[in-house]
Parts: sequence; C-alpha cells; structure tokens
Amino acid sequence: MLLVTFLEGSQPRNGVLDRARGEVIDLSRAAAELPRDMSSFIALRAEGLTAPRRALHSGKARLPAAKVRLLAPIPRPARNIFCIGKNYREHAKEVQSLGPGGGAAQAGIPQAPIVFTKATSSVIGPDGPIPGRLGPTGTTDYEGGLAVVIGRGGRGIARADAMSHVYGYTIINDVTSRGLQRRHQQWFIGKSLDGFCPMGPAIATADEVPDAGRLRVHTRVNGELRQDGCVADLIFDIPALIETLSRTMMLEPGDVIATGTPAGVGMGFTLPKYLRPGDRVAVTIEPIGTLENSVE
Amino acid sequence: MLLVTFLEGSQPRNGVLDRARGEVIDLSRAAAELPRDMSSFIALRAEGLTAPRRALHSGKARLPAAKVRLLAPIPRPARNIFCIGKNYREHAKEVQSLGPGGGAAQAGIPQAPIVFTKATSSVIGPDGPIPGRLGPTGTTDYEGGLAVVIGRGGRGIARADAMSHVYGYTIINDVTSRGLQRRHQQWFIGKSLDGFCPMGPAIATADEVPDAGRLRVHTRVNGELRQDGCVADLIFDIPALIETLSRTMMLEPGDVIATGTPAGVGMGFTLPKYLRPGDRVAVTIEPIGTLENSVE
Repeated sequence: MLLVTFLEGSQPRNGVLDRARGEVIDLSRAAAELPRDMSSFIALRAEGLTAPRRALHSGKARLPAAKVRLLAPIPRPARNIFCIGKNYREHAKEVQSLGPGGGAAQAGIPQAPIVFTKATSSVIGPDGPIPGRLGPTGTTDYEGGLAVVIGRGGRGIARADAMSHVYGYTIINDVTSRGLQRRHQQWFIGKSLDGFCPMGPAIATADEVPDAGRLRVHTRVNGELRQDGCVADLIFDIPALIETLSRTMMLEPGDVIATGTPAGVGMGFTLPKYLRPGDRVAVTIEPIGTLENSVE
Repeated sequence: MLLVTFLEGSQPRNGVLDRARGEVIDLSRAAAELPRDMSSFIALRAEGLTAPRRALHSGKARLPAAKVRLLAPIPRPARNIFCIGKNYREHAKEVQSLGPGGGAAQAGIPQAPIVFTKATSSVIGPDGPIPGRLGPTGTTDYEGGLAVVIGRGGRGIARADAMSHVYGYTIINDVTSRGLQRRHQQWFIGKSLDGFCPMGPAIATADEVPDAGRLRVHTRVNGELRQDGCVADLIFDIPALIETLSRTMMLEPGDVIATGTPAGVGMGFTLPKYLRPGDRVAVTIEPIGTLENSVE
C-alpha cells in the first residue's frame, strides 16, 4: 500500500494512493477512527493497515490524485532525519576524488556507518520548491536515496530481526549546500537548510517491497539521468544500519533513516553540476514512485 | 525564575524552583490554565511567566524540593539538540593536541561554528544515571556546558536581535563516547547514546541572566574540578550561534542549543580520565544550579 499525507483545505490528512486509478483515498473519511497524523498512524503498525486496505478495495472517499496536494508523508518527523553518508562505494570514491576538502572527514570507504542528521524543519513534500537560493555559496546539490521508516521501535535490534522493524520505504532527496557542508566541518548545517529535505511522494509499506536490495534509485535533473544505483550496493545494508543505530539508542516508530546516495551527485562532475533556479530534480524508486521538486 | 519539570506520580509537571526556600511550586495547581508540557509553555514566552511569578510570591502549591524528582526541564525536545563543537579556544587546542584521530575533522580553531546534534532519546534529567556501559569502547567522556533555550523562533535573525530570541538557559552535559565519535566520523552516534544528554536542573529565564558572558562553567568528577570556563571565552558567542543557525533554518520555540564545552574533558589528559561506573559528574553554572549525574 502507498500511504500519503495530503492537504485538504489547510488540514493535513492521511490517505492511500491508488496509482492504477489515479486516485487518493481520504482516510479521514474512509477510516475515521484512525489517527490523523502519520506518526501515530505508523505506531499502530499492521493493525492500522486493515481499514485502509479495506478502503482501497471499496470505491469510497476517493479524490482524483491530480487535484490533491501531497505533503511529505511524514510532514513533521518527531525528531531529526537520520542520514547515512558515503554508503555507496562509487559515491564514496567520487567524494574521495575531490580531495580532503570534499566534505569528508576521512577519505575512502567508511569502515563504519557515517551518521548525521537533517533538521525536521528541512522537510518538504513532493512539488514543494527547494529554496536553492538559501544556500549562500551557489553549491546546492542533490542526493537521491531510499529512506526506511521504522515501525516497531527498539534498542539492541539484532541483524536477523531488523527487517521486522521496518514499516515501509520512502524517497528522500538529501539536498546539500556543499559550501556549508565544508565550511562547518560537521555536516548538519549544510544538510539542514529549510526545504532541503524533499520526502515522498508516499510510504510504500514493507509488504510492497519483498527485497529492498532490488530497488533502484534514479535521479534526473531536467530529465538528464544523473544517478542510477541499486540498493543492493549499499556498503552498510538496511539490517546493518538498524543494528548499528539501535545498538546504543532507542529507535522509535516514525523514525526515518535515509540510507545514502549512489554516485552521480553534482559535485562529482569535473565541472560541478550544482542545482540552479528553475531546475527540476526527480528521484524515482519503484514501487514508491517519483519525488520531483523544482529549484527556486 | 527557575523553571523545572518534575514527576508527580507518573505524570511530568511544570514547576518553579524556589531555591531559597528549597521548594518547588507545582504549576499544574498554582496556574492550572498553563500548558502542561514545557515546550508549549515556552512558546507562550513572557505571557506564560506572569502566573508562575505570582505563584512564586504566594505560598501556594509548594512541595519540598528534596522530595521532588526532577526531570530534564524539556524531557522530550521537539527535535534533536543542537550542539556546537570546539567552541572554546583551550578546548579546541586540547582536542588538536590529540592529533588527527582526536575526533576532529579539521585541526585547530574552527573558522565557523561546528554544529552537530544529539538525539532526543539521549536526554535525561538530573539524578538520572548516565549508562556509561552502553559505550562499547570504555571511552565515555563528559562535556559540561551552557545551553540556550529559544523562546521566539525565526529565520534570518540578526546578531543585534538575537538575544531577544533567548527564552532562558540550562545546563547540558554533552556526554560522548570518544570511541564511537571517532569510529563513525560524523559525531552523531558517539553523542546520541541513550542517556548521554543530561539536562537541567532548571531553565533560568533570560531575565535572571543579564550578561551570559559572565556565567562560569564548572565540571567536577567525584568532587575533582575538571573544567572551569567562562562563557565570555566562547569562540562563537550566543548571538553568533543564533545568527548562524537561523541564517538557513527556522529556529523554533523550545529549541535547545548547547554552546560548547571548556577545556578539561577526560580525553584531554595524558592518561585519559574517562568516566567509570560509580563516578559522579556535576556541572555547575549559576544561577541555573548544579546538574549532577552518576555513571552506571
């Protein structure tokens, strides 16, 4: 199932996206007993999905998807987004090739997951414009990637159990000001500009993705294919990330972990291809869909 | 005024600490119209402080402080704690002297604020034990420091206006696993172990602190003075931090910014003095008080 948050008037509502029919089912009408915000909904896990599944098979409470304004599926996460740096070999190499000023504390392939966060205030939905002009150095860059949404929280989650804690998957474009990333050493500021975390268009529940390793990440800028990666190529795979994070901290329902970005970011080109006003960035991961945003 | 959150039965409540009389005023009784969680309370700013001030001068709804269990003043921040790294010159030097493996991406005095975050789940209150054993490398270290609590949010806050956005001050012990900080390159994991962010004992409202630069930070381990710094020695002072952060992101009421730690951390000693089970760490900043935690 594809879960979305959309705007009805000024109110965010939960919905189910029926891509085949181009419709969104309004869960505030089709399953009014369910919580209205996505994080509480996620905390219900499988129990929360029965009514939406029924609604998907009935004809009720449907809106034409084209008329609905989608927000990020979790418009305001309960805490910062967890992000993994340099988690694809080819991307780690392209960063390394830029030398010690390339935003990396240590060169080469990481021996342990590199984890940083993006501020909650950086989250925007599909269609929302990326305010590239906020970056003072003209170095706004894209990083398309798969994000995992945690369903069941926990600490000390073993690798073998990790996938049972995954609620679903979404797409995150980890937009970055390379200039600020470098200037401030730790990456948080360069990663957390308002609007620099497009998320969406939907959460594909885990049952839609029997093998996350087979997912492909495609990022296009103005139609030009820039990134083409396969989740199987993650240096630290999803179970490893959940195991590592939960070893020392409690994971919680609704936590979002951006797993990393494949090679092909703008700064990796000999003449860097940073984002400019008017550009359109589209990250596609099926069956989640395409997360497309314009740059302002 | 000293604002606290305390536990009454299993419910967190807001209170005012009257240190002179050794009492806590229960705001759920003395000012029942106020919101029960500290973040909503802070969002009211000066308006929220009238009733507590009245209560402080009346004799009502008082509990003996010794019988009250204090939590962190903001037990669950709405997002990760903002933290500034290497923001005291002498501390930056002691880190530098450890060489490139010393947890620093670039050596020396930072040219711009280094900003990382601590997970919300790492927050504990005064008295709460620091679970030092969670750190797998036996390198649990203390970092006492002043934290700023934002009252009025905003973006693009000018230096000259910055102090009007400060709601108050608290103490944070930015407990760190040096081993994890190093292993994962970005500092988030080494800084975010559950229980590694003692906060409190109170928020001193801004009117109690006419000049934050004059505040002194003292950290003692088992009574031995380890850190003795003056907030005036911050490389990037509070207005600079607010200006820098808000330049590219919206600051929000209840945001907590740990401003950095003075020299004298455990790893800075020739034979590093890491925390061990049974140790007691006490960070004192008057007029906020002393934040004391044991290590498990």
